[in-house]
Amino acid sequence: MEVKENVPNGELSTRVHVLDGPTNPMVTPLLTDLYQFTMAYAYWKAGKHHERAVFDLYFRKNPFGGEYTIFAGLEECIRFIANFKLTAEEISFIRESLPSSCEDGFYDYLRGIDCSDVEVYSVSEGSVVFPKVPLLRIEGPIAVVQLLETPFVNLVNYPSLVATNAARHRFVAGKSKMLLEFGLRRAQGPDGGIGASKYCYIGGFDATSNVAAGRLFGIPLRGTHSHAFVSSFMSPDEIIDKSLHSRDGSSICEDFVSLVQTWLSKIQWSNSLRGVFGETNQSELAAFMSYALAFPNTFLALVDTYDVIRSGIPNFCAVALALSDLGYKAVGIRLDSGDLAYLSCEARKFFLTIEKEFGMSGFGKMSITASNDLNEETLDALNKQGHEVDAFGIGTNLVTCYAQAALGCVFKLVEINNQPRIKLSEDVSKVSIPCKKRCYRLHGKEGYPLVDIITGEKEPSPKVGERILCRHPFNESKRAYVVPQRVEELLKCYWPGNSGKPREDLPPLKEIRERCIKQLEQMRPDHMRRLNPTPYKVSVSGKLYDFIHFLWLNEAPVGELQ
Amino acid sequence: MEVKENVPNGELSTRVHVLDGPTNPMVTPLLTDLYQFTMAYAYWKAGKHHERAVFDLYFRKNPFGGEYTIFAGLEECIRFIANFKLTAEEISFIRESLPSSCEDGFYDYLRGIDCSDVEVYSVSEGSVVFPKVPLLRIEGPIAVVQLLETPFVNLVNYPSLVATNAARHRFVAGKSKMLLEFGLRRAQGPDGGIGASKYCYIGGFDATSNVAAGRLFGIPLRGTHSHAFVSSFMSPDEIIDKSLHSRDGSSICEDFVSLVQTWLSKIQWSNSLRGVFGETNQSELAAFMSYALAFPNTFLALVDTYDVIRSGIPNFCAVALALSDLGYKAVGIRLDSGDLAYLSCEARKFFLTIEKEFGMSGFGKMSITASNDLNEETLDALNKQGHEVDAFGIGTNLVTCYAQAALGCVFKLVEINNQPRIKLSEDVSKVSIPCKKRCYRLHGKEGYPLVDIITGEKEPSPKVGERILCRHPFNESKRAYVVPQRVEELLKCYWPGNSGKPREDLPPLKEIRERCIKQLEQMRPDHMRRLNPTPYKVSVSGKLYDFIHFLWLNEAPVGELQ
Repeated sequence: MEVKENVPNGELSTRVHVLDGPTNPMVTPLLTDLYQFTMAYAYWKAGKHHERAVFDLYFRKNPFGGEYTIFAGLEECIRFIANFKLTAEEISFIRESLPSSCEDGFYDYLRGIDCSDVEVYSVSEGSVVFPKVPLLRIEGPIAVVQLLETPFVNLVNYPSLVATNAARHRFVAGKSKMLLEFGLRRAQGPDGGIGASKYCYIGGFDATSNVAAGRLFGIPLRGTHSHAFVSSFMSPDEIIDKSLHSRDGSSICEDFVSLVQTWLSKIQWSNSLRGVFGETNQSELAAFMSYALAFPNTFLALVDTYDVIRSGIPNFCAVALALSDLGYKAVGIRLDSGDLAYLSCEARKFFLTIEKEFGMSGFGKMSITASNDLNEETLDALNKQGHEVDAFGIGTNLVTCYAQAALGCVFKLVEINNQPRIKLSEDVSKVSIPCKKRCYRLHGKEGYPLVDIITGEKEPSPKVGERILCRHPFNESKRAYVVPQRVEELLKCYWPGNSGKPREDLPPLKEIRERCIKQLEQMRPDHMRRLNPTPYKVSVSGKLYDFIHFLWLNEAPVGELQ
Repeated sequence: MEVKENVPNGELSTRVHVLDGPTNPMVTPLLTDLYQFTMAYAYWKAGKHHERAVFDLYFRKNPFGGEYTIFAGLEECIRFIANFKLTAEEISFIRESLPSSCEDGFYDYLRGIDCSDVEVYSVSEGSVVFPKVPLLRIEGPIAVVQLLETPFVNLVNYPSLVATNAARHRFVAGKSKMLLEFGLRRAQGPDGGIGASKYCYIGGFDATSNVAAGRLFGIPLRGTHSHAFVSSFMSPDEIIDKSLHSRDGSSICEDFVSLVQTWLSKIQWSNSLRGVFGETNQSELAAFMSYALAFPNTFLALVDTYDVIRSGIPNFCAVALALSDLGYKAVGIRLDSGDLAYLSCEARKFFLTIEKEFGMSGFGKMSITASNDLNEETLDALNKQGHEVDAFGIGTNLVTCYAQAALGCVFKLVEINNQPRIKLSEDVSKVSIPCKKRCYRLHGKEGYPLVDIITGEKEPSPKVGERILCRHPFNESKRAYVVPQRVEELLKCYWPGNSGKPREDLPPLKEIRERCIKQLEQMRPDHMRRLNPTPYKVSVSGKLYDFIHFLWLNEAPVGELQ
């Protein structure tokens, strides 16, 4: 899977440059809108298909009411174009789908196209990004680049959205908590699930329940058992093989069931816990014992099938204590319903009581996982209430991006045949920034990024220590001088086409994840806070500003008040 | 693709019974949560893996604030289990993912499993369905059925959600409008897009822009051109080949560009339109002419790149009139921004004026497509304002189910070894209905469905003309006698396993779509309205009611007030 070979540090040149196709084999050149093919035909018919066009892919507004976005999906875009080629069968389907009047020469043309003369410049995957700044700049023959629009936007939109969502969940949960992505069953389709697992990992999650994603991407996997497992048992009498070797193999416990029952009774009648619970649920107890016999080293129990305090936790503790007798250390519990703040605190108290009562050092630190319909708001509320949860399993709200289910990435023509193009709109936020451009992030003294600036492609780049004017692209009164302490060029060449430029390597997933986490840490805190975050500034150079407004006036019709 | 052969009516027995795998090749037995494998191991270790379990797949609440849901995703579930088999490579990945203490025998067991002894009973795909009634009942060895949980829920959740969303959009738009699904670029991943196209078609959409979906499922395709196409042109001078044959091939127009320009000038200075517009945008005019030269039979122009009224529509009309001179009939326009109600009415007026002024019969009926961020609410608002739109292109809000991005399907154990199981919860709406069950829809005199009733599997089925008591499953005071005029059994055998029962055929997509449209039409209107719809009643038999509550009391711990 990995695009990069494991090579000694620095020896970039020896890396493998053959790219696999997209993760999902359904990502083919037909995964596009029909109008890309009708336009390609019209370009071809007009003899315009070879004209060199530049398109920017960007979004206009950060999602989830925040002021930042994580860029993701680049590797899949590059794999897609690296393998872009229409098969004979695909071409004959296109022929069926277009009017019969379309000329044969077009299909010969389609047979020949690939992305060898397309260039793709992109922000690095896992970067923190902002509205209006191109995430990708795609240059090439207009008919070919047009065909890439839909798949590129599709391959960037959801990955960036869900990675951002994951980053926001991480922000609220805090660094010390374990975050588990549990969303596969509620995701929007099978690769909605697989994509969610991959891009939530980039955004700062620690593991997933999704086995396919674990296999495809090497993401750590987590999972224990469900309510069905618990209710599939009737009573401890069902357990036939009751024996369990001690952890070091030195002894064998012939009747683990009795050992657990002895512990349960000890807990029940202990000084500190007497009266806390009566008879616990026996099907639950049987399930826990069975699970422990299967996984004595990694015993983690879902304790809310019947009653957390009066059944689940005592049953869990009895099994954990029996395991402890044999040298095993139980992992902890999962809560999947009810008042998670309250229940986690009660569970912690129970564990601490056991630690004290039975001198079980460390028992109080038993891990508590919570997992019921969690989202940013509920995590925030839990923090405010106070809780004892160590790990959060988050599904539906995370993977479907329930709070905002789409990111509005667009793909706009900004230049053709070296002529700049602008897309006007009555809504200023929808006016595109014309020209082939370069983008920089300017960092200040404290190391924070200060502002992103977009310039014309041929303008000199901003220099460290030199004052530069940064202008709001559409508001003439908003401008500021900046003296950058570090200048970072954002768009790098990930697909050089025929330009002869070196190609940036696609880093492995872990590196992307590390970049994301690091960049998030470097942001000024007021951009990151959940309530009323400060917008990060995106600007254009003075020269580009003037040019945008010259074009705008040129293109816009003069109205007539009536 | 189609599972069914084209065979003469009634000859069911000759139909092909070999099923292809899932549409997305990423849907493999590993597309599941890790805990399904850890549970499978624990069942195996306890010798319980062969125990016969019955699970119900259902949802608890209709989406989008409505009172109905469309069931979709069945075909993919059946294709999945028809091909369910773990490969050696998959098994070795599972081995790596589980603790090393897991015994080898388990992997031998995994090597042998398939779904030949699983039975699946299901509501027909495309049916109107309601909360609590099982959509699927899955029976089989508990370890195997457990592995199916995650993929089944994934394969049903989003398809049912998006089909419902499509049906709701159709309901607001009305039967006479053309509905086009344009969501691929904003969908949650590549097969979020492909799934959206398929399931929106089931829910009543007419066509998609998604070429891959058109090819996979035979869904009609639509698409013309984008703003980029318009702004890629500079002026009519660019057009080199200006000739166009007349439609019947009898003559050739050597300079279509001049013909259009002549028409533009005629419109501009006509009695009725003088002063409405001045100079139109020339790059737009060039784009329209080029598009018409490429597609003279299917000319449809996006008219809002510069100014709809003062440029787009006059330019379109000039090209349409020139085409008309050559015997071609233009299709119409698309509006993608601004006040769609107002602009569509203005466009209609313009077309009618052209019809009258130039005696162009039918020109006033030119098709108007609208496509800017539409959803149920905006369609409703357009209806209230009055509009002249003939076709709606709907993307983001439709395919991402922006208004509610997930359906909460669950998969609950209801019986094991012929013993009923109930999942309790402090939230009554989350208590599961135990036992292997049958489900019926009872229709009344007017043909409307009256109520769904769930009974124990061995209870006699409701009979036409015979009074039956229908009880709310959890509210003892809610009950009603019903005398059904038609009794429809909802769960049919789509995968017989070893039961020897005949297998229901998987119908082609068009039949599923027709069932959906027909069932929606048969519903009582008050269940369907957008504002405060009446809930459709879902009930249980008296016998099942008593049994649920007997189990409930048995399982629930008695509380102690302190």
